This record gives sequence, C-alpha cells and structure tokens, in this order.
Amino acid sequence: MSPYNRIAGQSVERICALSDGVFAVAMTLLVLDLHAPAAEAIHSERDLLGALWLLAPRLLVYMLSFLTLGIFWLGQQTQLNFVARSDRQFSWIHLAFLFAVTITPFSTALMAEFIAYRSALVLYWLNIVALGALLFASWSYLERTHLLKPDMPPGTAAAVCRRILYAQALYAAGAALCVVSTTLSLGVIVLLQLNYAIAPRIGPLARV
Amino acid sequence: MSPYNRIAGQSVERICALSDGVFAVAMTLLVLDLHAPAAEAIHSERDLLGALWLLAPRLLVYMLSFLTLGIFWLGQQTQLNFVARSDRQFSWIHLAFLFAVTITPFSTALMAEFIAYRSALVLYWLNIVALGALLFASWSYLERTHLLKPDMPPGTAAAVCRRILYAQALYAAGAALCVVSTTLSLGVIVLLQLNYAIAPRIGPLARV
Amino acid sequence: MSPYNRIAGQSVERICALSDGVFAVAMTLLVLDLHAPAAEAIHSERDLLGALWLLAPRLLVYMLSFLTLGIFWLGQQTQLNFVARSDRQFSWIHLAFLFAVTITPFSTALMAEFIAYRSALVLYWLNIVALGALLFASWSYLERTHLLKPDMPPGTAAAVCRRILYAQALYAAGAALCVVSTTLSLGVIVLLQLNYAIAPRIGPLARV
Amino acid sequence: MSPYNRIAGQSVERICALSDGVFAVAMTLLVLDLHAPAAEAIHSERDLLGALWLLAPRLLVYMLSFLTLGIFWLGQQTQLNFVARSDRQFSWIHLAFLFAVTITPFSTALMAEFIAYRSALVLYWLNIVALGALLFASWSYLERTHLLKPDMPPGTAAAVCRRILYAQALYAAGAALCVVSTTLSLGVIVLLQLNYAIAPRIGPLARV
Repeated sequence: MSPYNRIAGQSVERICALSDGVFAVAMTLLVLDLHAPAAEAIHSERDLLGALWLLAPRLLVYMLSFLTLGIFWLGQQTQLNFVARSDRQFSWIHLAFLFAVTITPFSTALMAEFIAYRSALVLYWLNIVALGALLFASWSYLERTHLLKPDMPPGTAAAVCRRILYAQALYAAGAALCVVSTTLSLGVIVLLQLNYAIAPRIGPLARV
Repeated sequence: MSPYNRIAGQSVERICALSDGVFAVAMTLLVLDLHAPAAEAIHSERDLLGALWLLAPRLLVYMLSFLTLGIFWLGQQTQLNFVARSDRQFSWIHLAFLFAVTITPFSTALMAEFIAYRSALVLYWLNIVALGALLFASWSYLERTHLLKPDMPPGTAAAVCRRILYAQALYAAGAALCVVSTTLSLGVIVLLQLNYAIAPRIGPLARV
Repeated sequence: MSPYNRIAGQSVERICALSDGVFAVAMTLLVLDLHAPAAEAIHSERDLLGALWLLAPRLLVYMLSFLTLGIFWLGQQTQLNFVARSDRQFSWIHLAFLFAVTITPFSTALMAEFIAYRSALVLYWLNIVALGALLFASWSYLERTHLLKPDMPPGTAAAVCRRILYAQALYAAGAALCVVSTTLSLGVIVLLQLNYAIAPRIGPLARV
Repeated sequence: MSPYNRIAGQSVERICALSDGVFAVAMTLLVLDLHAPAAEAIHSERDLLGALWLLAPRLLVYMLSFLTLGIFWLGQQTQLNFVARSDRQFSWIHLAFLFAVTITPFSTALMAEFIAYRSALVLYWLNIVALGALLFASWSYLERTHLLKPDMPPGTAAAVCRRILYAQALYAAGAALCVVSTTLSLGVIVLLQLNYAIAPRIGPLARV
C-alpha cells in the first residue's frame, strides 16, 4: 500500500458525523413533497379533511422511507460503535452505503407510485439489498482487519452477521412474493420492517 | 431479548448528532418558501415595501415553526444530557420523535394557511401533542431502565415530568378554545410557546 | 427560577452541532438557484459561455451570502470555544442567532435583486445588525453569568466586544452611504466583509 | 496580528462538524433531480423500465458528483486528523474549500449536460483544481505554522503533498485530452477518480 493510503481516512468520528448529516437530509427528503392543499379549492372543514385525506398515501410513503432509513441508521450505528479506528477502504464502504441511503427516498416513492409493477418493487428491494450488503461488507472488513475495539462483548460478531443475513433472507422471501402479488409482497416487507423497529418479544423473530 | 438487540443502538452521541442534523433541516424547511418578489412588478421603494409586506405572514409562520422546534430541541437536549447510554428501544423512541419534528413545518404552514378551520388547528395541536408524548415516553423509559447518569441532580426527574405535563395541559386548554375561535386558540398557543422561550420570571408560569 | 429551567439546555456541544447543521444548510441554500442553462438554447461554445456569463451575478450573490455566513460562523465559534457550560437563556440567544442565520440567504438575494432600492439594502444591513447584536448579547450574557471557562486568555473579553462593536460601526457607516448611492453602500459593506475574511495586516483595520 | 484574530477560529471540531454538514448537503443535492416518471405515461412494465432507463444518465451524474465529493471529503478528513488546533486563517481556507464543495454538484451536472462542449469540461476540471489547490494551501499553511499534532507518523507530510500534486497532474492531463475529445477526457478523469476510490494495488498508480 502507498504511504498516503496508510494514513488516509482514519477518523471514525468523521464517518459518524457525515453519516448523521446524510441520514438527516435523506430522512427529510420526502417531506418536501408534502404541501398544504391549494386554498382556492377549500370552502369547508369537509373540503379540508378531504384534501388532507388525499395526502395520506404520500405521508405513508414518507413514513416507510423514514422507517427503512431508521433501521439502517441503527444497524450502522451499532457497527460503528465497536470500531476503534477507520482506514480508507472502510471509509469507502461507508461512502457507498451513504450513497444507497440517499437513493432510498427515491426508490421508496417510485415503488409506491407504481405499486402495480414488479420492476418498481424489485428496484425497491434491490435498494434494501444494497444497504444490507454494504453493512455486511463493512462488518466482514472489520473482522478481517484489526479495526475493532478489543473490549467487544463476546458473541457480538456472530450476532451482527446473523441479524443482517436473517433480515435479508426474510426481505428476499417477501420480495419473491411479488410473483403472486406486488401488494402482498410490499405488505410483508413493511411488516418485517415494523418488526425490526418495534421488535416484539414473541415468535421466532424475537430470537434473531 | 436477542443477542443483537442487546448490543444495538447504544450510542447517545449518534442520537444527538442525527437529531441536530434533522432539527437543522426541519428548522430551515419553511425558509425555502421565502422568495424575493418578481422584479417586473416592482417600480418604486413603495412597491418593494408592499411586496415585502405580503411576505410578512409567511415569515411569521416560519418564526412560529422555528420557535416550536426550538422548544422541543431544548426539551430533548435537556433529557439526553442526563443519559449515560442508549439502547435500541430508546433509539426508536427518538427516531419517532424526529419524525414528528420533520412534520412540524408542514403542520404549522397548514394551520396558518387554513387558520379559519378547526381541523387545521387540531392537526397542528396533535403535532405538538406527539412531540410532547414522545419526550414523555423517552423520559419514562429512561426512569424504568438504568440508562440515566448516576450523578443526576436531585429533583431532575420530577422537574422534567412536570414540565412536559404542565405544558401539554396548557397547550390542550389553548387548543380547546377553538370551539370559541380558532384565532384565539392559536393566539394562546403562540403566547404559551413564547412564554417557554422567553420564560418571564413573574406569574404562576415561572414556577414550572 | 423553576427547577426545570435550572437544568435545561446545558449542553454546549448540542448548540455547536445544531449551529453547524443550520449553517451548513443556510450556506448551501442559494446554490439551489444555480441551474445549468436549458440545452435547447445552446448551439455552440459561445452560446454556453454566454449562458454561463448570465449566471455570474447569481454566483456572486451566493458567494456574498457564503462570505457573510462564514464571518458570523467564525464569530460564533470563537465565542463558544470559551464556554464551559450553557443554560436555557443562552440556548435561546443562539437559537435566535440561528434564525437570523437562516434568513441571510434570503436578505442577500433580495438585496442583490433590488440593488437600486434603499429598502432592500437597509433590510440586508438589518440582517447583519441582528447577527452582530445577538453575538453581542451572547457575550454579554456570558460575562454576567459564570458560564465562561476559567482559563480564558487575558484580554479575550475586551477583544471580542471590540471586534463586534467596531465591525458593526463600520457596517452601519457603509449602510448609511445608501443616502448617496446604494451601489456604493453595498461595495463598502462587501469590502469590509472581505477585510474580515482575508484580514490584511496593514492599515488601521488590522488592529481590531 | 490583532488580539481578536489571535483567539479566533481555534476549534478543529467545529471545522469538522461544519464540513460534514456541508458535504452531507452537497452530496445529496443532485438526488433532488431524480423524480419518479409521470404515472400517466406508464401502462406496462416495459414502459416503466423504459422511463427508468431515461433516468440512468442523471443517476450516473449523481454518482460521479458523489464520487468526487467522497474523494475530497476523504482528503480533507486525512489532513484534519493531524491538526491539533486551528486558527482564523486556517478556518478561512476550509470555508473556501467548502464553497468549492457546494459548487461541485452544479459543475458536474453542467459538464454532463454539455459533454460535447469544451468549456463545460474545463469548468468541471477547474472545480477539481480548486478543491485540490485549497487542500494543498491548507497543508502548506499547516506546515508553516505549528498547528499540526506533534505525534504525526514520519513521512506524512511528504505523502500528503505528493498525493495532491500527483492526482492533480493526472487530472490536468485528463482534462488536456479535451483537445482530442471531451468524452475521452471525461472518461479518463472518471477512471482516475475510480482509481482513487477503489485503489487497485497494481500498476504505478498504487504507489502514490
């Protein structure tokens, strides 16, 4: 390795701070699509409630995008919490991860707009795959190098890997349901995400 | 709890940094609606002042949204200042709180646009309720678990709870006035918010 | 003071982080107005250079807004560097400062669009006054309370006050020139800002 | 130097935090141009894939802008990692650097839109030159003053300088190819950037 590459990109704090900035922008991107209805068309409380009701799907898409980003923000945070030092390869893995993060609002909105089409759902799923794959690559890289903190609790490595693989397997199964129905497929993926956010303590999902 | 969930989301610093990013974006969202008036329509100082005067309501709405977000930013900061360690449930409470934060500019602008309608005012109030309820949930969770710093000054817990409940009761009373007049209702809510920002040292409000 | 207000808003780190987020957004607001020219109108290198030349005023306004924000970011940073602990009043002074920060791109663009009108220039100057006044209020508050770090180099307090008052006096003199010519007035203000950014070591300006 | 200028702008943490905020916004600017295609024009999976295919160039431009910003974010991070203390001149070098950062999405999009024109390519290249020159100025300033950490690994200074100069020489050579073909020129610049991101361990490029 060149002398420069040996000293480049060592700051975990900078990766964290850039990530929090990028997540903050990505998490708020879809709120830009929420606009108050035009005043001219509103003449009664009923008109206003009707106009707001038409905004509901948009709000739901925004919530879904926020939920997805929240899950992967938490996944990244958990990993970075155990990192003692970064290097340039590790920085680039996380830059690629952040790129996938910024695409998420777009792919979510696209999927919602074209819920009847399989290609929209597959694209949305590929976005989730990319986020998971990059977090997995990040953890694999950490295990191969000596960037992890020495005082990591035992079992951490196995728990992190298992979580990513198990979750991605479930997402893939959900996405595969699109051969039956894209709406069913989306429903299963959303339920899986809600499960990871709310984490019920019952059932087989509670153990991974 | 699964091994992964035991190690996930422990960084208070990341919650703080993400929150500051999300607040920074949310606080600036409504400034995007402030545009210089079209040059063609301006032929004198008087025209310009007239056009700027038309922008005043928009500026006021932006100030109100900034004020509300400032109040809840300060409330969250005060809590997080006493937190030694986070966990995944706590992270999700704050992600939900941040979601409510990003909705605030929209609900404020909607309320201002349709000030004559009760549903707009109730929606705005529900946004404030959500922010308060999530901060209350966050503090309740902290008290039930052992995530608080051991060196917290005595009386902190009671002061935090009382502040949230008292403020929310006053906001609810203000919102209830909308059965009389939505403008009166908004006026009271804004005065309450100004009170929490400027905190006059007189009257019964100074003691909570 | 109420028990809650005694414990609220103590984190200087959070004020710094929120400020950096708000400055980051405000500094990039005017770049949103830079758009590539429409492809249909471009048929030669000369066309393209002509279209880009038309963008130059917009770029200059953006640079001016960035310059102003850079000056006040540095002013705030210098102050906060000496702060040991915050409180809620201090937090609100800086929230008000951040509000003035987010208005700066708007008032700069307005002034540039209507450079022939005194009211636009006066509004721009009032924005600068607000930024300076709030930094002065922040420092006065710090001196009255015991929030400053004890190991502050001697002469710091006097240097900070003198800088703000001297700079604001010069800006006010520049703004007053608008009774002669608004363009002259703007020119003087921009030269003063460049002086504070580049800080030439000659002349009477170098000693404050 | 004036007493104020001796105490101003000493916080490296604030420069880092502002930089991460500005990079986060700049990195996401071009994603605002990605919009779901209009639903009315889509009647089949084939229509949707066709419409998405038309978005591909925009996505590529976004990736290129993200890649460029990633390279310079890493370059800045590497430098700031060795800085013990900042001062006001150093702060202004980095504010100028951040200005060039916020221009990058615009100059990248402009170059992509007018790839057939040399002036668009030269402008894009000048943006890269500005980023490199300011990082070089930052490092030169650090070496002239005593702001660097004393425990810097030997050879760091030489490695940092060599990297910037070598990379800029290669970019300049790539840009010079625009006398033959602007597309060739862009291709070479993109390959160079990919090389710095992925850093293959073979060939003469691996040693710098």
